[in-house]
Amino acid sequence: MRDMAMTITEKILAEHAGLDKVVPGQLITAQLDLALANDITGPVSIREFEKFGVETVWDKTKVALVPDHFTPNKDIASAELSKALREFAKKQGIVHYWEQGRVGVEHCLLPEQGVTLPGDVIIGADSHTCTYGALGAFATGVGSTDLAAGMATGEAWFRIPESIKFIFKGTNFQPWVSGKDLILYTIGKIGVDGARYRSMEFTGEGIAALSMDGRLTMCNMAVEAGAKNGIIPPDEKTLAYVNERAKRPYKVYHSDPDAQYVEVYEWDVADIPLQVAFPHLPENAKPVSEGKGIKIDQVVIGSCTNGRLEDMQVAAQILKGQKVHGDVRLIVIPGTQDIYKQAMQEGLIDIFIDAGAVVSTPTCGPCLGGYMGILAKGERALSTTNRNFVGRMGHPESEVYLSGPAVAAASAVTGEISHPEEVL
Amino acid sequence: MRDMAMTITEKILAEHAGLDKVVPGQLITAQLDLALANDITGPVSIREFEKFGVETVWDKTKVALVPDHFTPNKDIASAELSKALREFAKKQGIVHYWEQGRVGVEHCLLPEQGVTLPGDVIIGADSHTCTYGALGAFATGVGSTDLAAGMATGEAWFRIPESIKFIFKGTNFQPWVSGKDLILYTIGKIGVDGARYRSMEFTGEGIAALSMDGRLTMCNMAVEAGAKNGIIPPDEKTLAYVNERAKRPYKVYHSDPDAQYVEVYEWDVADIPLQVAFPHLPENAKPVSEGKGIKIDQVVIGSCTNGRLEDMQVAAQILKGQKVHGDVRLIVIPGTQDIYKQAMQEGLIDIFIDAGAVVSTPTCGPCLGGYMGILAKGERALSTTNRNFVGRMGHPESEVYLSGPAVAAASAVTGEISHPEEVL
Repeated sequence: MRDMAMTITEKILAEHAGLDKVVPGQLITAQLDLALANDITGPVSIREFEKFGVETVWDKTKVALVPDHFTPNKDIASAELSKALREFAKKQGIVHYWEQGRVGVEHCLLPEQGVTLPGDVIIGADSHTCTYGALGAFATGVGSTDLAAGMATGEAWFRIPESIKFIFKGTNFQPWVSGKDLILYTIGKIGVDGARYRSMEFTGEGIAALSMDGRLTMCNMAVEAGAKNGIIPPDEKTLAYVNERAKRPYKVYHSDPDAQYVEVYEWDVADIPLQVAFPHLPENAKPVSEGKGIKIDQVVIGSCTNGRLEDMQVAAQILKGQKVHGDVRLIVIPGTQDIYKQAMQEGLIDIFIDAGAVVSTPTCGPCLGGYMGILAKGERALSTTNRNFVGRMGHPESEVYLSGPAVAAASAVTGEISHPEEVL
Repeated sequence: MRDMAMTITEKILAEHAGLDKVVPGQLITAQLDLALANDITGPVSIREFEKFGVETVWDKTKVALVPDHFTPNKDIASAELSKALREFAKKQGIVHYWEQGRVGVEHCLLPEQGVTLPGDVIIGADSHTCTYGALGAFATGVGSTDLAAGMATGEAWFRIPESIKFIFKGTNFQPWVSGKDLILYTIGKIGVDGARYRSMEFTGEGIAALSMDGRLTMCNMAVEAGAKNGIIPPDEKTLAYVNERAKRPYKVYHSDPDAQYVEVYEWDVADIPLQVAFPHLPENAKPVSEGKGIKIDQVVIGSCTNGRLEDMQVAAQILKGQKVHGDVRLIVIPGTQDIYKQAMQEGLIDIFIDAGAVVSTPTCGPCLGGYMGILAKGERALSTTNRNFVGRMGHPESEVYLSGPAVAAASAVTGEISHPEEVL
């Protein structure tokens, strides 16, 4: 049945649309498994939702509201946003609402809590919703109005994206290379619109060798290449991760061997050095060696991209017994309370404090120029976050470089962009 | 020599003015041991300092610059303030400057680091500079311009304050009563201008029984009764605390038995119940029982008033095995990195996280409506901080109640103002 061959993304969307087969370009309406919003987008969605004249959300177990961007409340305006989210969650009996203190960065929290599962169709009013593709789900960011419609109806329409296949061959990674380096390398190769409205499917031995944390990092940044979604077909690691957490059934999909891709890229992981994306676009990815001599004022290790336990572990391995450079502020932000606690129990937080780092409660904070580490004019940050656009972390005349946690930690010690081997 | 009798405050100021004797009302010029500013006031002082045409501060070992109010940088404006402080500290070679990640709330940090010592004359461009009186120093808040003059000349002028003596008799404290309760009780009795431009001298067995942390809390809030300074004559506890930390000589002063006081108050600590100061003034202190039934949205445990290790220990004793009420955000902020680390090693942070609290990196943050826990319209906080003025922690129509850490922790569990016995 050659003409029935589909990619994993096509299969998930077809089944959620009640169709046997879909093809790229086709418009469908899909049943949702989850609709997500945060403290910035949620209040806008709620306002739109209330215009529909619908009393209740379609399914209070399938809406997630996560106050994480400007929380703990940064100012009166953000306090009002949190309050709107809280009051709606309470009124609607939203099951997946977490109060400040019990929460974390949404895209770290939901997989950890087993809220997002393989085979799901997930929309979120946040561009990095694509993170959940690492579990083998179709997950994509939408506008607040679309999210409102999703909360009301449990449905969303999509145009079936074409798929691009990225094959990472081999497992002979260069030292310290992580999922972040693979995705920065990828974006560097194809550009920030290289996958516009397409599905990025990551496969190969290199991907299989990555931890779930590393895979979540990769799919998280699919949107930085313009993709509709990023996705990694589930394997045993995925199932081990999911089965510990899932509280409802899920379904595993895989691409057919003869599924159609508009492009196929194939790289050997051995050829991918540690990456740094230079200002002001993620596509400006270069080998870390090209950053030599570039002084930095601040390092951030955290966010929905690199705020997971493995990221904390890597940073601590490098920072153990080291001191943060006198001219550098190092801000470490575990992605969730569970990650924070685990890092504490493993002695990682001790290492960070001894090195002279700020350890923040989980928040998106500095990543989007929110708070907890904003840059002054002329300052330069190296950050494990996902975007280095002009003014992203503060003053329009500040600069952001992106890297994985290993380069970030090493650079915090030397005060300039550095390979970990320079400090070990 | 009856007419030579002086209070501890008079003795310190006399010696620093090169005089054998001073009397209340007298104008003197005193040599300074320390001039302190933070990231809000420092940049103003620096600007004024630079107008003097002086190249360098009078003594780079006697200026302390502490970025703690809006740090880690809340926004671009605060990033610029931090930057101004950092650049001045670097240019001047300021010894007591700490970078974000190595810093803490100024009035927790400086005593801990042995920068403030008994017998010192200390001015700080921050109203709670009076905290250091707990070490037997004369310490008072000044405006940023006076601080600039102090940084330039090493001198400041004062009118010798009259002294009020507060005698706390006995050691039969009611359960959970701390320094915070004694000072709230005191302010409740004399009012927010009850000690205007006077020295508050705290003595008696009750004070002797307090830990250094409890004494620092008491002197910290002297300014909330309008005092020029609060002071506690050093005893063995003081010396034990100081000798672990001091890196320079210091001198211990005591009031003469026949020193003159304009007023003397005498209370038995057994008569002082746990206190809560109702909105919108610290003088609205009442027994905690009067708060019964008052629901709260947020609890803050921290600040220069109650962010010390003992405060963390008390809160953890009550929160151990408990859960923060579903409608409450509990924000715990250790005062310094050392306190944070010590709390972690004692398992207190684990207790806070398990209870469902936010644990923030050290910052003044929410106390002054800065960030990290700002209130929306109509919200009500119970806070271990020092001021409950209108809009202090957020929206002008929010409310702040003040208490010690025991009442704060208990109330976080019940969701309304509570005595600890209600949850234990």
